[in-house]
Amino acid sequence: MRFSRIGAPGHETPAVEIDGIHYDLSTVTRDIDGAFLTGGLEAAAAAVTAGSLPELPAGGRVGAPLAAPGKIVCIGLNYRDHADETGAAYPAEPVVFMKDPSTIVGPFDEVLIPRGSTKTDWEVELGVVIGETARYLDSPADARRHIAGYVLSHDVSEREFQLERGGQWDKGKSCETFNPLGPVLVTADEVDDPQNLGLRLWVDGVQRQNGSTANMIFGIDHVIWYLSQFMVLRPGDLINTGTPAGVALGIPGNPYLRAGSTVALEIDGLGRAEQTLVQA
Amino acid sequence: MRFSRIGAPGHETPAVEIDGIHYDLSTVTRDIDGAFLTGGLEAAAAAVTAGSLPELPAGGRVGAPLAAPGKIVCIGLNYRDHADETGAAYPAEPVVFMKDPSTIVGPFDEVLIPRGSTKTDWEVELGVVIGETARYLDSPADARRHIAGYVLSHDVSEREFQLERGGQWDKGKSCETFNPLGPVLVTADEVDDPQNLGLRLWVDGVQRQNGSTANMIFGIDHVIWYLSQFMVLRPGDLINTGTPAGVALGIPGNPYLRAGSTVALEIDGLGRAEQTLVQA
Repeated sequence: MRFSRIGAPGHETPAVEIDGIHYDLSTVTRDIDGAFLTGGLEAAAAAVTAGSLPELPAGGRVGAPLAAPGKIVCIGLNYRDHADETGAAYPAEPVVFMKDPSTIVGPFDEVLIPRGSTKTDWEVELGVVIGETARYLDSPADARRHIAGYVLSHDVSEREFQLERGGQWDKGKSCETFNPLGPVLVTADEVDDPQNLGLRLWVDGVQRQNGSTANMIFGIDHVIWYLSQFMVLRPGDLINTGTPAGVALGIPGNPYLRAGSTVALEIDGLGRAEQTLVQA
Repeated sequence: MRFSRIGAPGHETPAVEIDGIHYDLSTVTRDIDGAFLTGGLEAAAAAVTAGSLPELPAGGRVGAPLAAPGKIVCIGLNYRDHADETGAAYPAEPVVFMKDPSTIVGPFDEVLIPRGSTKTDWEVELGVVIGETARYLDSPADARRHIAGYVLSHDVSEREFQLERGGQWDKGKSCETFNPLGPVLVTADEVDDPQNLGLRLWVDGVQRQNGSTANMIFGIDHVIWYLSQFMVLRPGDLINTGTPAGVALGIPGNPYLRAGSTVALEIDGLGRAEQTLVQA
């Protein structure tokens, strides 16, 4: 299934998307969140099969397809080509940092350039959404059954705040609106091979990123297993699994985002998003 | 007012504590959370004045006095004596990292030593709870009105995970049960000078920390103002403001916590907590 949330910010209606039409899931769940992803999928599938869900009007705002994750965990430098471009050594084990969960906005919402920022950068990423609590998994082979689905995620980053203001990255990752998400949350059963998805990103029409999840240093299963040794992953948590090459930090001249810039991004099977940058 | 949450984990009753007795606040609020701290304080004060709140039975489990913060933001190396003992230079500006909000447990709950850990360490800290959204504050002088209250916080830390496993600290800060909180959330109006509070911690009866919030490098107002330049602080968010000297990392021989260790901690006016360590 492909879940979405349609409506004004803070008032989104949970929906299931079929052939581009959004059907109202309100009778099945209050929201697309951890509780629903753990226990509500069968009821949603039954309602889809029954054909009983009302169609939502076309043209409503598309919100982030996941409500209020308990945490956003990010993996740094997880593509060989991105590590190369930033001049960083390949990490010996996953680099882990966090992002304020309240940074999530819809896939077509404005993204704010923080006041004082001159180095706001883009990062297209595969987001993994947890569906079942993961705690000290025995091996990466146990990871998949803890994954509810996948989502297109934009890990917007301020490089000065991240790298030049004390060394802990969270400071450059948690600015307001810094995690556009969606348009859809696709359940794991509908993604044939999450380790073979193309990721692409354009700035003002110029393609800047063109990668594949095949080039992750630490694959999704490894990441979920690894994280579960250090923290409890809970239903609804979002894992941003890293970005391929092509960010402004790695391009000669560092063409960082400015007010008025437009970023478009997409991942195979997970849809397309587009955001305009606005000065905070 | 002094707020508490009494009852089994996940089923705590919101309460107000007066002279050691907990009064049931359920008729005023569903929980002690961001929404209550923003809009519910007057109704709680009125109920206390009216004397209409039922007494809760004595002896119930004391939970964390704050439900589900949207985020936990931590300030690193924020006491001169602690920076000295860890061999770190005084930071030029606040060092900022994050902790999984689901690490919060009650002040007398067990704390788990992570599997594979040999360097689990303690940190008594003044926790600041946000009561009003803070976004790009003009100056530190604006900070106080965004603070709902103060709470005793234990920022449990795994030093190998934090410092030797990739360099981003979150990995050693977010293990299960790593943020005991409470016993009480004391509203800002009842704390005369939050910048002059004694903090103390004992391990197995031996005093290890004995500091004062007067020795912070960056004071509370500066920290709130500073954070608001990088992220939006929202009602119910928790800020751990750093720890004074005396952690195991800084003591000759590094006497890290072991299963069976008991940690007691207190801050002037914010109560006392005690946790026993248990192997995860």
